[in-house]
Amino acid sequence: MMKIPFETMKATFSKVLLREGFSEDKAIHCATIFAENSRDGVYTHGLNRFPSFVEMIKLGLVNGDAEPTLENQNGLIERWNGNLAPGMLNAKFCMQRAIDLGKQNGIGCVAIRNTNHWMRGGTYGWQAADAGSIGICFTNTIANMPPWGGIDPRLGNNPLIIAVPRENGHVVLDMAMSQYSFGKLLQYQSNHEELPLPGGYDEKGRLSTNATDIINSKRLLPVGFWKGSGLSLMLDLLVTILSHGDSTRNISDNEKEYGISQVFISIQPENAEISSQLTEQILAYTKDSDLADPDKPISYPGENTLKTRMINLKEGIPVDESIWNKVLVMLN
Amino acid sequence: MMKIPFETMKATFSKVLLREGFSEDKAIHCATIFAENSRDGVYTHGLNRFPSFVEMIKLGLVNGDAEPTLENQNGLIERWNGNLAPGMLNAKFCMQRAIDLGKQNGIGCVAIRNTNHWMRGGTYGWQAADAGSIGICFTNTIANMPPWGGIDPRLGNNPLIIAVPRENGHVVLDMAMSQYSFGKLLQYQSNHEELPLPGGYDEKGRLSTNATDIINSKRLLPVGFWKGSGLSLMLDLLVTILSHGDSTRNISDNEKEYGISQVFISIQPENAEISSQLTEQILAYTKDSDLADPDKPISYPGENTLKTRMINLKEGIPVDESIWNKVLVMLN
Repeated sequence: MMKIPFETMKATFSKVLLREGFSEDKAIHCATIFAENSRDGVYTHGLNRFPSFVEMIKLGLVNGDAEPTLENQNGLIERWNGNLAPGMLNAKFCMQRAIDLGKQNGIGCVAIRNTNHWMRGGTYGWQAADAGSIGICFTNTIANMPPWGGIDPRLGNNPLIIAVPRENGHVVLDMAMSQYSFGKLLQYQSNHEELPLPGGYDEKGRLSTNATDIINSKRLLPVGFWKGSGLSLMLDLLVTILSHGDSTRNISDNEKEYGISQVFISIQPENAEISSQLTEQILAYTKDSDLADPDKPISYPGENTLKTRMINLKEGIPVDESIWNKVLVMLN
Repeated sequence: MMKIPFETMKATFSKVLLREGFSEDKAIHCATIFAENSRDGVYTHGLNRFPSFVEMIKLGLVNGDAEPTLENQNGLIERWNGNLAPGMLNAKFCMQRAIDLGKQNGIGCVAIRNTNHWMRGGTYGWQAADAGSIGICFTNTIANMPPWGGIDPRLGNNPLIIAVPRENGHVVLDMAMSQYSFGKLLQYQSNHEELPLPGGYDEKGRLSTNATDIINSKRLLPVGFWKGSGLSLMLDLLVTILSHGDSTRNISDNEKEYGISQVFISIQPENAEISSQLTEQILAYTKDSDLADPDKPISYPGENTLKTRMINLKEGIPVDESIWNKVLVMLN
């Protein structure tokens, strides 16, 4: 497989965005996040997603010039308008606001409406953890999953991120509410691989491990059946109510996903040393179990991300050559 | 099936607790929560659990006289010691503190250590919603679920509750991180019913729908496989770090579950009218899907709770006669 150094990928993305009229600062910022997502093994929201991000810019649905604006402040909750700026920049900004509020007051909460896809939600979890803060964030999406008992997409897969800082690698959970994220299904499809566990239904309503069948039926399975369906609904309620923004329902009126709603919460641990001891104790205990398969160790959320990061920084980031070429062509 | 009026159940529980030395106020408060849990159809954490609650009092692991005490205040985050008081009273107290902080400052967060089982977590979600607030709370438990990839219990099933207020019935998600809660498994076992979907593994490591097999192997399936395993771990990290309390690891050093850790967050919606409109819009859209089974309507979290409540208030609460008699004997 073709491999591209992290710095090359970042510089290439940045050049493309400069051509699209981004300021140098914003081009580098966006390019860094895309390249970091691929570097960390989240290829679906790194290089693989970059061409459609550029398409969204060309369509005017992502506005490189826009900045978020404050709409209301209610105690420690802030409500912002994303003004359709790049979702990653809005999300970074909001998590930083939440971190700042949290450092001042213990906890902070920032809601944003009219923003765009943040790509990898984990990015903002790592951001909070890098600042020594607990980070929690979630987003709605276009409808891409039926509610439990239904067959039509009426829920987003609404990723939820929870991050806890840790000296030797943060603990970062980044989970979509579908058993497999849509990006993951596309990955299995393009690799012609079956899913290890059922990820949805086929057109006849049978549980399926075939990504193409599931993409065609649009019946992705919620995490834990009725439970993930309920959790997805709650996250849509929270982001919509707190941001006064568009719900999955309104977002789904459009063919393309834009103008979504998100919430960022940060909590400041009282004592970093005590937090650290407790975290290590919990992780050690979790790993102290006999294994179901001796070749598959128990890992904490974020552990494999860090391993992939180290390998990809050393050996280069594996890329789908056709997608990489598509990006290079944008520079012609 | 035998049915007992709500008021009779409440009065009976209260009399038992008075005999156990509870003050009148606390006896009624605890009795009300137990009776309400059964009234709302959560029988596993109502009547069915009452005898083991009384046992915990007799063992001195639940202290009816104790009151929570403030250990630290860090901005809008408060850290309390539950002093092994009844878990339901501590939880009610903490959610009320979070609601008060939220009403003053937009958001509030209260952590408590050294507390006891709160029975039905949904109780505190309904409490926040009744106050017009969003409520989020979660708890750790004794280890009762293997982490993904492991076969020994190293994680709690750590319920997560998210509640959004609504005029015609609050939206309240109350989910344990195992696909089926332990109480639910016991219910299927005592009814000699198979689970509708796999809930764990048998002793040979095969996915199973048999509650007894799963209880014996102690290999409950996390919600969404690796995802629920990760989320459970994160919740244990959050409650432990924020409360400076015992993690699932430490709780599991004891044979009985006591001295657990919990977090309560409340957020005050800025505008009740706007929240209400957005909530109705989201619920209507979710239900506006064709059904997989025309006899099984799509319901929002909490909807069936409310229906069961209405029926049980009218017709009496169905009880397992042997358990009800066990409680009556306590009054002899």
